[in-house]
Amino acid sequence: MGELCDRQKNTNVRLSLPAVCIVWQTAMIILFGVFIRYNEESSPRWVEYRKAKNISSDIENDFYFRYPSFQDVHVMIFVGFGFLMTFLKRYSFGAVGFNFLIAAFGLQWALLMQGWFHSLDYSDGKIKIGIENLINADFCVAGCLIAYGAVLGKVSPVQLMVLTLFGITLFAVEEYIILDLIHAKDAGGSMVIHTFGGYYGLSISWMLYRPNLDQSSRLQGSVYHSDVFAMIGTLFLWMFWPSFNSAITDHGDGQHRAAINTYLALAATVLTTVAVSSLFQKHGKLDMVHIQNSTLAGGVAVGTAAEFMLMPYGSLIVGFCCGIVSTLGYIYLTPFMEKYMKIQDTCGIHNLHAMPGVIGGIVGAITAAAASESVYGHEGLINTFDFEGEFKDMVPTRQGGHQAAGLCVAICFGVGGGIIVGCILRLPIWGDAADDNCFDDEAYWEVPDDEETFPQVPQYNNHMRNKDV
Amino acid sequence: MGELCDRQKNTNVRLSLPAVCIVWQTAMIILFGVFIRYNEESSPRWVEYRKAKNISSDIENDFYFRYPSFQDVHVMIFVGFGFLMTFLKRYSFGAVGFNFLIAAFGLQWALLMQGWFHSLDYSDGKIKIGIENLINADFCVAGCLIAYGAVLGKVSPVQLMVLTLFGITLFAVEEYIILDLIHAKDAGGSMVIHTFGGYYGLSISWMLYRPNLDQSSRLQGSVYHSDVFAMIGTLFLWMFWPSFNSAITDHGDGQHRAAINTYLALAATVLTTVAVSSLFQKHGKLDMVHIQNSTLAGGVAVGTAAEFMLMPYGSLIVGFCCGIVSTLGYIYLTPFMEKYMKIQDTCGIHNLHAMPGVIGGIVGAITAAAASESVYGHEGLINTFDFEGEFKDMVPTRQGGHQAAGLCVAICFGVGGGIIVGCILRLPIWGDAADDNCFDDEAYWEVPDDEETFPQVPQYNNHMRNKDV
Amino acid sequence: MGELCDRQKNTNVRLSLPAVCIVWQTAMIILFGVFIRYNEESSPRWVEYRKAKNISSDIENDFYFRYPSFQDVHVMIFVGFGFLMTFLKRYSFGAVGFNFLIAAFGLQWALLMQGWFHSLDYSDGKIKIGIENLINADFCVAGCLIAYGAVLGKVSPVQLMVLTLFGITLFAVEEYIILDLIHAKDAGGSMVIHTFGGYYGLSISWMLYRPNLDQSSRLQGSVYHSDVFAMIGTLFLWMFWPSFNSAITDHGDGQHRAAINTYLALAATVLTTVAVSSLFQKHGKLDMVHIQNSTLAGGVAVGTAAEFMLMPYGSLIVGFCCGIVSTLGYIYLTPFMEKYMKIQDTCGIHNLHAMPGVIGGIVGAITAAAASESVYGHEGLINTFDFEGEFKDMVPTRQGGHQAAGLCVAICFGVGGGIIVGCILRLPIWGDAADDNCFDDEAYWEVPDDEETFPQVPQYNNHMRNKDV
Repeated sequence: MGELCDRQKNTNVRLSLPAVCIVWQTAMIILFGVFIRYNEESSPRWVEYRKAKNISSDIENDFYFRYPSFQDVHVMIFVGFGFLMTFLKRYSFGAVGFNFLIAAFGLQWALLMQGWFHSLDYSDGKIKIGIENLINADFCVAGCLIAYGAVLGKVSPVQLMVLTLFGITLFAVEEYIILDLIHAKDAGGSMVIHTFGGYYGLSISWMLYRPNLDQSSRLQGSVYHSDVFAMIGTLFLWMFWPSFNSAITDHGDGQHRAAINTYLALAATVLTTVAVSSLFQKHGKLDMVHIQNSTLAGGVAVGTAAEFMLMPYGSLIVGFCCGIVSTLGYIYLTPFMEKYMKIQDTCGIHNLHAMPGVIGGIVGAITAAAASESVYGHEGLINTFDFEGEFKDMVPTRQGGHQAAGLCVAICFGVGGGIIVGCILRLPIWGDAADDNCFDDEAYWEVPDDEETFPQVPQYNNHMRNKDV
Repeated sequence: MGELCDRQKNTNVRLSLPAVCIVWQTAMIILFGVFIRYNEESSPRWVEYRKAKNISSDIENDFYFRYPSFQDVHVMIFVGFGFLMTFLKRYSFGAVGFNFLIAAFGLQWALLMQGWFHSLDYSDGKIKIGIENLINADFCVAGCLIAYGAVLGKVSPVQLMVLTLFGITLFAVEEYIILDLIHAKDAGGSMVIHTFGGYYGLSISWMLYRPNLDQSSRLQGSVYHSDVFAMIGTLFLWMFWPSFNSAITDHGDGQHRAAINTYLALAATVLTTVAVSSLFQKHGKLDMVHIQNSTLAGGVAVGTAAEFMLMPYGSLIVGFCCGIVSTLGYIYLTPFMEKYMKIQDTCGIHNLHAMPGVIGGIVGAITAAAASESVYGHEGLINTFDFEGEFKDMVPTRQGGHQAAGLCVAICFGVGGGIIVGCILRLPIWGDAADDNCFDDEAYWEVPDDEETFPQVPQYNNHMRNKDV
Repeated sequence: MGELCDRQKNTNVRLSLPAVCIVWQTAMIILFGVFIRYNEESSPRWVEYRKAKNISSDIENDFYFRYPSFQDVHVMIFVGFGFLMTFLKRYSFGAVGFNFLIAAFGLQWALLMQGWFHSLDYSDGKIKIGIENLINADFCVAGCLIAYGAVLGKVSPVQLMVLTLFGITLFAVEEYIILDLIHAKDAGGSMVIHTFGGYYGLSISWMLYRPNLDQSSRLQGSVYHSDVFAMIGTLFLWMFWPSFNSAITDHGDGQHRAAINTYLALAATVLTTVAVSSLFQKHGKLDMVHIQNSTLAGGVAVGTAAEFMLMPYGSLIVGFCCGIVSTLGYIYLTPFMEKYMKIQDTCGIHNLHAMPGVIGGIVGAITAAAASESVYGHEGLINTFDFEGEFKDMVPTRQGGHQAAGLCVAICFGVGGGIIVGCILRLPIWGDAADDNCFDDEAYWEVPDDEETFPQVPQYNNHMRNKDV
């Protein structure tokens, strides 16, 4: 089959892929050499810094506040996103392997892009990095991995590298606009990560619409074991989401509260997802697609408000709604979008990231607008919303408006950026597969033969053995 | 096959499952709205609280003492328990999926039940939650997941929701009696979690005895890959057990010592499990069932004594014995119980949780009774056993007695509660599968067809199929 | 097949394996009883110790500095190494199961061996252990697991226990010589762990050369799902490597910097691995063997220098080179070594551990030699390189020489120790498999039959098959 398609359409990336990897990695080395340095907490000068600031103990190094959350986020990026996409029967290598590739490239480029906007030390023109930069780089990468979910199985690794290069760039800009200029808060990235990433991927998928994709329909489903592999991704995303939403929030109560809210929202989502999945299936049987994806929608939707006083019951309500919305999205919206809007969304990221992300942005705006000193306390309100410096006159209601503005920016960047990048990816030079050869690892991977998996029945094995020896 | 059984016995949960999920989740939202609030460490008032208590740094927020352990426990609950049960050839969806469902519901109900008993702020009648409550909720859920192991593949998701609702309730009550009234210590829950959960599940399984279960025997085994999936569960449980036993112990040496003791006990268990497994098999071949389960018994059995001065060699001895007892249990006791006691224990939780839990309770009682100021130091003894307030006159020997009393309470609640809940679950309204259709995901899941996994060599497949149809 | 080989060569370990496990575990208990105690941070005397040293908070207990990293390292040892080796189509049980067995034994023996050299309290002749000892024990075990990779599928569990007993012993001695006598620094163990472990395994494999191993060639490949399982190991190793290299470095900036450097090196390795893998394959298709293994080489190679001022771009350069070297090693060196040097390296540890380890040692020597007060600051230089006590007159250039000396010691111990242990393992008493029965779980495991995995209706399958064939 692989051979067949090579004749029809050339998926040979033997020159383009190595070239892109080597050139871009070399560029990273040069740019890191020019710009990236350790910050005062990760350089040997920490000892002197500590004394100068009279910090009483090494344990107050930001590393100890954020490293455990960082590692959890790291697992979500590589195992979570990677394995969530292994559900296809013959695209597990591409799912976990290309996820690995673009994440590893993306985080380097993200350190630079985000560094220029947020961590540039104007005294010497260097970017000073610490653990928080690594977390933000992982976040930035998440946006592109979400986009990958929409085009899973339909693009070449070279296209993915391009998608990531532009995705990271767009991300850093919209993040700077939303967080710094507009002064919206978005701890868990409902807007900055999920809304942007979702619409970015959907727009690209729309630009790369394949009218004859049904020629690959035989490979578009899952098999028993691939669904179990996908559950590994689902569960690691689900379990570590509290770390995702609390990783860069304020020390102390900020991280504490964000973790609690996320934990609760996700729990509620599971029940409503199961309810809707069962209710809308023949014989009330559960659909693995819903369990694997919609159960995560609650984590996306509390991303913005997780650090606010959303209240435990508020988190449950958000989770409750998202489980329903997301599952219904898989049942009705995804087929509709494919049929009438020419958007082929392989993993249904619209239901898992885009919609819940928008809900999260709205929830965040409302929660912010409803904030008050009576609930947060005087200092608490200032700390939580950073009503300091140029924003010291900011009030909750206006903050709500800024949150809403931030959401719009995220959507615009996602859609606009996706369309532009989609145009670039339509060029016939990227080595993507033919319509009848999508969702197939044969195109880009050396795939082993599977006969030997069941070596009972001697005569069969002998037959095989003659073939491979 | 799925179709077939639908005619014989109705496994259609299309109305009951969604109804239960929606109703219970709605109830949770209302109860959380009425009762659950953030505690002083997770609310924005933390800043003021810190100053009032003059706590020098945010790092002393309990979040930083317990969050890493919490995340490890969380992984044990969802990936550990979930994947440990995926060993059956055609019940992996049910294992990991229903584990996910009942854990997500259970932790919400646990926050309420345990909150009323332990975290109720009498000043305003609210339950104030922080990271420690999340850990305890996960612990509480563990009891029900253990019980699920006994009835795996034989009950419907609706029955599991009922099992969990009552299980959490019973757990919170027995936990309150054992820890608060009797003042027994049980950091890792050998008694409170494992003994209770084990006997709760076994009693339910006894009440739900299926005389003709052998009609499903074709599905009761594992396949090669499902055994590898189960090892994912085993290893995450094994690796993170030190976090489980140290998650809620005292700050400082308490958590430190509990982690060390658990680490050592588990290591010893692995060797004796391998020894017994090999010794009792034809040709000395190892049995995956033992490696997957008995290697964990040591962690269960040091649960109570982990925070005491069990000493490193003491931990090794406990692990040594449990590996032997648990493996022999799988070889002799499980078949015996099925044949003569009408207890069908799918995962052998009696060998992994119930027996080691009882051993753990006894070890805890002995270790407590043997405690002395010469070993613990004056303050150390008081801190470790909380000989304060109304218990300031307590002495180690008497503490030993209280530990033993606690163990009895756990057993009684497990057996008694299991019988009552078992009666309820025998009602013919729950949509459980027929005897010839147990251990089969077809009953409750949309299961994909597996042909595409091996598109090679048709004749072989046909040959095989004639054998199994 | 299993039966067949039992007649040819006896793989029955029914007496030897249990005997070794029980005897050695009993010895551990006795030795722990005589030697191992809790240190001041894990004993109840911590409360008094704290006051004596006036440590302001429990959070300054070393447990909170290192426990999260410890758990990550623990995952690397059991899931990382275990699953990385599951790639063989019929040796997944042996890969993950025997890895589990020897790691559980090894860490106990390591606590004793390393304790005698590093943690012996001369006042009472006891070894005082805390969290750092557990991490070092895991490190020590890593050396033996690396060696296992070279002989995977060709040795019996009894041989593995012997390999581990001697491996741990040799490790503790060479570690003492390199770190304490020579005063080389090796935070991530490029020399102490990877170089030693790699050459130890390769020498043993050379001693156990099997001229007719091609008789097992039918089992030497992977199958689709086994490659996905192996990716679980790869990713957990890759993600947690920053914890591995920073687990025992200095509190504060030491751990912080080591994590950053490792994170960056690994990212760069992924891109060059993909580039070389694609460039050297027919049609530019990627080879899973390279993605599973070579992507980790960067973590190995920054092990020594991770805590130094390697600089972010320096880390990228190291990763860049190692991805290329390691992948080319799999393509050219491994076949060459098998054909002309009689070294059969099942997992290619020479490319993943030995070579990158040597590179890491050299990088460490250069980075140390290049250190200066202008970069590290006066105190920073002393802290980073421990220029204290008897080494207070040490200078960076000389430190570089000591680093190089350390590398040589590691190689000598690896090669020498491997040859000696290899001789022992050649004795005909260990129950290893015949040449035509290697890489087969049948020899040491009860393997389930796999028919039931596809219980669907024949005619439908044929219909399907006609469509895709």
